[in-house]
Amino acid sequence: MVQVVSISDLSSYVDQEVSLRGWVRHHRKSGKIQFIVMRDGSGFAQVVLVKNEIDEATFDLAKTLTQESCFQVVGKVQQNPRNQRYELLVSQLTIIHIAEPFPITPKDHGTEFLMDNRHLWFRSKRQWAILRIRHRLIKSIRDFFDDRGFTNIDSPILTPTAAEGTSTLFGVDYFGEPAYLSQSGQLYLEPAVAAFGKVYCFGPTFRAEKSKTRRHLTEFWMVEPEVAFAHLEDVMVLAQEFVHYLINQVLEHHIPELEVLERDLEPLKQSLQPFIRMTYSEAVDQLKALGSDIEWGSDFGGDDETLLTQQYQQPLIVHRFPKEFKAFYMEPDPDDDRLVLGMDVLAPEGYGEVIGGGERASSIQFLLDQIAKHGLPEEPYSWYLDVRRYGSFPHAGFGLGLERAVAWICKLPHVRETIPYPRMLNRLKP
Amino acid sequence: MVQVVSISDLSSYVDQEVSLRGWVRHHRKSGKIQFIVMRDGSGFAQVVLVKNEIDEATFDLAKTLTQESCFQVVGKVQQNPRNQRYELLVSQLTIIHIAEPFPITPKDHGTEFLMDNRHLWFRSKRQWAILRIRHRLIKSIRDFFDDRGFTNIDSPILTPTAAEGTSTLFGVDYFGEPAYLSQSGQLYLEPAVAAFGKVYCFGPTFRAEKSKTRRHLTEFWMVEPEVAFAHLEDVMVLAQEFVHYLINQVLEHHIPELEVLERDLEPLKQSLQPFIRMTYSEAVDQLKALGSDIEWGSDFGGDDETLLTQQYQQPLIVHRFPKEFKAFYMEPDPDDDRLVLGMDVLAPEGYGEVIGGGERASSIQFLLDQIAKHGLPEEPYSWYLDVRRYGSFPHAGFGLGLERAVAWICKLPHVRETIPYPRMLNRLKP
Repeated sequence: MVQVVSISDLSSYVDQEVSLRGWVRHHRKSGKIQFIVMRDGSGFAQVVLVKNEIDEATFDLAKTLTQESCFQVVGKVQQNPRNQRYELLVSQLTIIHIAEPFPITPKDHGTEFLMDNRHLWFRSKRQWAILRIRHRLIKSIRDFFDDRGFTNIDSPILTPTAAEGTSTLFGVDYFGEPAYLSQSGQLYLEPAVAAFGKVYCFGPTFRAEKSKTRRHLTEFWMVEPEVAFAHLEDVMVLAQEFVHYLINQVLEHHIPELEVLERDLEPLKQSLQPFIRMTYSEAVDQLKALGSDIEWGSDFGGDDETLLTQQYQQPLIVHRFPKEFKAFYMEPDPDDDRLVLGMDVLAPEGYGEVIGGGERASSIQFLLDQIAKHGLPEEPYSWYLDVRRYGSFPHAGFGLGLERAVAWICKLPHVRETIPYPRMLNRLKP
Repeated sequence: MVQVVSISDLSSYVDQEVSLRGWVRHHRKSGKIQFIVMRDGSGFAQVVLVKNEIDEATFDLAKTLTQESCFQVVGKVQQNPRNQRYELLVSQLTIIHIAEPFPITPKDHGTEFLMDNRHLWFRSKRQWAILRIRHRLIKSIRDFFDDRGFTNIDSPILTPTAAEGTSTLFGVDYFGEPAYLSQSGQLYLEPAVAAFGKVYCFGPTFRAEKSKTRRHLTEFWMVEPEVAFAHLEDVMVLAQEFVHYLINQVLEHHIPELEVLERDLEPLKQSLQPFIRMTYSEAVDQLKALGSDIEWGSDFGGDDETLLTQQYQQPLIVHRFPKEFKAFYMEPDPDDDRLVLGMDVLAPEGYGEVIGGGERASSIQFLLDQIAKHGLPEEPYSWYLDVRRYGSFPHAGFGLGLERAVAWICKLPHVRETIPYPRMLNRLKP
């Protein structure tokens, strides 16, 4: 039996006879030669059938292969002198299944059609490349934290209460009790950091926002590290190291995929510089000078983020925000009681916020005051406040949205291509 | 400034002066000496204060430390000649926060009380050890598949339809449309395997079962690998290699945690043998001989699983089940049309099923017939059937429930201790 190998490993088998199994991506035939671009999930390769070098029945059988038909070939691996790629000169061919006419053809299709056929669309080279990079980011995110001694603490999806209001929550009937799908694991991580020192969760989160923008999914994955004894400065440093690590891993392993996406590598390499840092107040001043009508005390709009990030080639950390528009649990700035010690990382090239976080308040009295000021009920937070009752300590953390990171690193126009099965306002299928 | 180190790294600093930060687990004082067991998330260590070797104010300050108070010390690392453990001879001490009386004391507490205080309970040594092993299993699960060229394809949580009936599904109001929380990613993985060759998903899954057993959570994590061109035999081999890898990783990295749990290592080592294999029919015969009243054609009960697994020291693979009680998408056995090519891995020591899977049907006509026979509507599965329309191929996979694996490897009486924030019939908090 000839060994079945992966297309991605072909370069190790030059001049050897191997077998490949996969699907027809493209098929070009003439009377004397057939070129089939085969994909097997690990990559794409050309397989060549030369009429006078194989028996006629096999040559004719190959002609019946339609787009996406499944087949197996045996042949000799050779490097194409024109493009240096590895290909297979076929000696045997077996058909596994002849595909019906495939809905996604090389012609242009509308977005809704492609999204309705998402389960087939990701066979295309571009979607394949994006989801391979998504996989690398997932792995790199975990490796980064695992290598630094963090413990993965899964926060629950089914929750009885909400971190920041209930208007954007999906409700679930939990055996007659109201429950909500989690939109952040942070409140669950803070008690865990007192047990494990450094923790992270990485799972799906949910926002029932009726937004139809290029940046919104209703179901998306978020990684949230949380560190005991860390202050704002520590998590700004951690966030920069983290993003640098992610970019380096993609550059190290996925140049071919970035080429498929025609991703300009220069901006990614620029993002390996130290991030620009500015306070919220400095950012507002700069925005005003650039013509924005933002006033001190209000949150950045998408246009403000774009305007600000356009000034720099690398990501930007904005820190120390007015407490009014930040979550109740943020630590106040000891130097200015209008501010809290939050920070956002804004990606360049118009991608905006990819990380949000900061230092968490460690005083129970401050938190009780904030819960009252925000008009929140105290009882549902009682367990969370326990972190400050039993050995309170400074701590800080942040969250990174996986899909926004994929969109930025792949430079995609819309987050819908960053996840295998996107969920959006009007999209629950397939 | 003295370097702050982790307790787990103390052995690298013998005779050096370092700083530790953490919480009081236990405090024993006499007039002349104080022993504090400190925990910092990475481990537990004794810190020692000797009255005549530090100033009196520090010695007195230390006396005020209550259980779970947060503090920082500086001192010299030494190995205790009695127990060989590394400890710190304290020269300086700073209090970060004095804890209120901690609800969980060394005395016995009821399960409900501990579960109500889950966010504090995992500070205890036993819960800490379990969740550290859970973390190792999560990492090892991903490493195993990543190292073998699998692509992580996240299946959606919000789904419009159900793989196997709707009675155990949690419903969600999706902007007015009915949606359900996923109880398996498999249907979403099969289209992806045609694009990526080898895939897995690993995320939370949900079952609205009104079961109050030691094996049921309503929210649990499941890893599901799926492999193109794999047959039943291939996934039986893969499942064994996978479980062996997980056990080996835990044995390599977590002997101290297993000691905390008083886990007998011998049964774990026995599970590194090749798994026992038997067909469903052989299992029924054996069960009957052992006194069970099971009849051919019905599924195993928990008692049957226990009885069967008690006969062996290593896990057991049961394969080739009657099609009646297995999912509609299973490939029929070519040698016996009453059977499908499914397989379950049953863990020893009474833990029962930890893996379920098998080969998936690749014929669209067979699947259409099965959907009709199971009384399922065809339209919601149309996208799933596309896998068989466009280049159909043999494929197989399985699912492993993380929490059941943790319970078995740690030998826990109940799955509620296997996840940071368990969700059960009467448990949605904290």
